[in-house]
Amino acid sequence: MANTHSFPKNEVHYAWNSNAKSVLAIQSGDTVVFDTKDVSDGQFNINSKTEDIANLNWDKVYPLAGPVFIEGAEPGDTLEVEIVDLKVGDWGWTAVLPGLGLLGVDFPDAYLKTFDLSDGENIRFADNVVVPIEPFLGTMGVCPKDAEGLAIMPPGTFGGNLDTRQLTIGTKLYLPVQVSGALFSCGDGHAAQGDGEVCVSALECPMNATLKFKLIKGKTIPSPQFLTKGALTPKVNHKGFFGTTGIGSDLMEASKDALRAMVNHISETYSLEPVEAYLLSSLCVDLKISEIVDAGQYVVSAVLPLAVFNQD
Amino acid sequence: MANTHSFPKNEVHYAWNSNAKSVLAIQSGDTVVFDTKDVSDGQFNINSKTEDIANLNWDKVYPLAGPVFIEGAEPGDTLEVEIVDLKVGDWGWTAVLPGLGLLGVDFPDAYLKTFDLSDGENIRFADNVVVPIEPFLGTMGVCPKDAEGLAIMPPGTFGGNLDTRQLTIGTKLYLPVQVSGALFSCGDGHAAQGDGEVCVSALECPMNATLKFKLIKGKTIPSPQFLTKGALTPKVNHKGFFGTTGIGSDLMEASKDALRAMVNHISETYSLEPVEAYLLSSLCVDLKISEIVDAGQYVVSAVLPLAVFNQD
Repeated sequence: MANTHSFPKNEVHYAWNSNAKSVLAIQSGDTVVFDTKDVSDGQFNINSKTEDIANLNWDKVYPLAGPVFIEGAEPGDTLEVEIVDLKVGDWGWTAVLPGLGLLGVDFPDAYLKTFDLSDGENIRFADNVVVPIEPFLGTMGVCPKDAEGLAIMPPGTFGGNLDTRQLTIGTKLYLPVQVSGALFSCGDGHAAQGDGEVCVSALECPMNATLKFKLIKGKTIPSPQFLTKGALTPKVNHKGFFGTTGIGSDLMEASKDALRAMVNHISETYSLEPVEAYLLSSLCVDLKISEIVDAGQYVVSAVLPLAVFNQD
Repeated sequence: MANTHSFPKNEVHYAWNSNAKSVLAIQSGDTVVFDTKDVSDGQFNINSKTEDIANLNWDKVYPLAGPVFIEGAEPGDTLEVEIVDLKVGDWGWTAVLPGLGLLGVDFPDAYLKTFDLSDGENIRFADNVVVPIEPFLGTMGVCPKDAEGLAIMPPGTFGGNLDTRQLTIGTKLYLPVQVSGALFSCGDGHAAQGDGEVCVSALECPMNATLKFKLIKGKTIPSPQFLTKGALTPKVNHKGFFGTTGIGSDLMEASKDALRAMVNHISETYSLEPVEAYLLSSLCVDLKISEIVDAGQYVVSAVLPLAVFNQD
C-alpha cells in the first residue's frame, strides 16, 4: 500500500553528494510532503532591503530538502515525480544579484524587491502590474553520479536546478536515476517565472510541495522530460502578447538582444524603471527560439503577456 | 483615403537589393493583397517525391513578392505591418534538405512529404496525427541597407526570413526601416511551424496574404517586434504538452539534445519513423529557453502539443 510521508523541514543540504545518508526511504507509489525553505534559506524576509544582498551568505543558498531514497531505484531507471500540489508561502522576493543574470553587464548593481503572496492568486508588482502566481519548484533532481560537494546552482542531465516553469501542479517530471536509491532532493520554490529566469531570480518563496514518486524500471532517458496537464500559460492567454527579437549567429547574444529590447519596451511603455522592467521580465517574459536553421542567423524572441497590465 | 492594392503575382525577386526598382508605391494606411508562391517557386507540387529534391534549382528558392515602396518612409522610422488575413493554398510540403536543419548530421538524406491543405483547418500528418493549420508568412522584411544581391535565407535586424510562428492573423509586426521607402517584400508562406523550424522546412505553401501598412515616423526599434491578438498556440492548448530537455553550456548543443530526445520520444511513442518524427517536430514542436542564468549550464526545452495525436 502506498504511503504518504512528511519530510522533516530542517533536514536540508547545500550540495550534491552521492554518498550522503538519505533522510527518508520510500517505496515506488509513495507520496512525500515537503515544506521547503526559500532559496536564501530565510536570510531574506518580506522586510529585507537591497542593502541586505551584500550580507548574503552563499554557503546557505539552495537549501534542498532531501535526499529521499527510493527503494529499488538503480542507475538507468527513470524516476517519475508527479507534482500533486504546491502551496506558496505568504511572501516572496526577487533580485538582481551582482555579477549574475543574463544582462549582468547592463545591471551591475544589487536590487531587491519583496512581495506579499497572501492573496494566493496574484502578486502586485507595481500599481498597474499584476502577475499571476503559477508555482513550481525551481530545483528537483536525483543525485548526480560521483557527486562530491557539487554545487546546486548548475543543473545537469540529473535535473536539479532546472528552473523550468512548466513543472507546475499536475505535471509529471521524469528524471534519469544515476545512483542507487535515486537520492531525490528538491527546493527553490518559485511563485512565478518566465522561460529563461532572465535576471537570475524568479519570484523566490517558501513552498509546501506534495510529490508522488513512481519508479519506472528499465526505461532510460538522456535528460529530464515532463508531461503537463494543460495549457502552458493558462492565466495569461487572453490578452495577447508583445514580442521583441534578437537576431544573429549566437543564441546567447541574440537572447541578450531580445531581452534588452524587451526591458526598453516595458520601461518606456509602462513607466517602470529599467531595473524593475528587468525583474518583471524574469517573472513573466518567455524566451523562445523562433528559428534555429536559417543560414547561421538565428532568431530568439522574448514574449510578454499583456494580461499582467492594467488589472485592478 | 486608404487604398487597397493587388500586388502583381509574377513580380518576384530572389535576393535583397537596396537599389531595386519598387513594383508598387503605397501610402501609410494602405492595404496590399499578395498572392505569394511557395518557397520552392513552384518547383514542387503535391505529387513531388523525395527524388525531386536533387533537382531543386536553388536560384529560384525564396521568391519574394515586392518591393513595395512606402511613401515617406526613411531610415530610423518603424513600419507596422498588420497581418489582416492569410489564406493557405490547397497543398503544401515539408522536407529534409541535405546539409540543412538542426539535426542535419543525424538526418543526412533528402526526404520530401506533401500535404493536402484543402480542409483549411488541419492537415493529416499520419493516420493518428493531425496538425492544425496556423498560417503565417515565413518572410516579411524591409530591405537591408546597402544590400546588393543579399541572400534571402538569413534573417537580420531588418526582418526578412524571421520564420516566427507568432506572426499569424491579427498580429502586428514592427520592422525598422533601413532605406528610403522601406522596400517591403514578403513570401515563404507557412501553414504550420513550431518555434525553431527545426528540420529547416515548415509546412511550406502558397499563401494569399492581406497586409495593412502604417508608417510610424520617428520611432526607432533595434530589431523586429510584434504584437499578437490572443493566445500563442490556441488550437493545441487543451490536451497538455510533453517536454524534453537539453542541458549544457552551449545553447545550440542543448537545443540539439532536446530535439534528439523529442524525435526519439515521438518515434517510439507514436510508431513513426525517426525522419517523420523530425518533420513533425518542425511543424509543431516549440523550442524554449527554460533557463539561461544558472552557473553556465542552460536548459532548452522542446515542447510537443499532445492535441495533435489521436484525433479523428
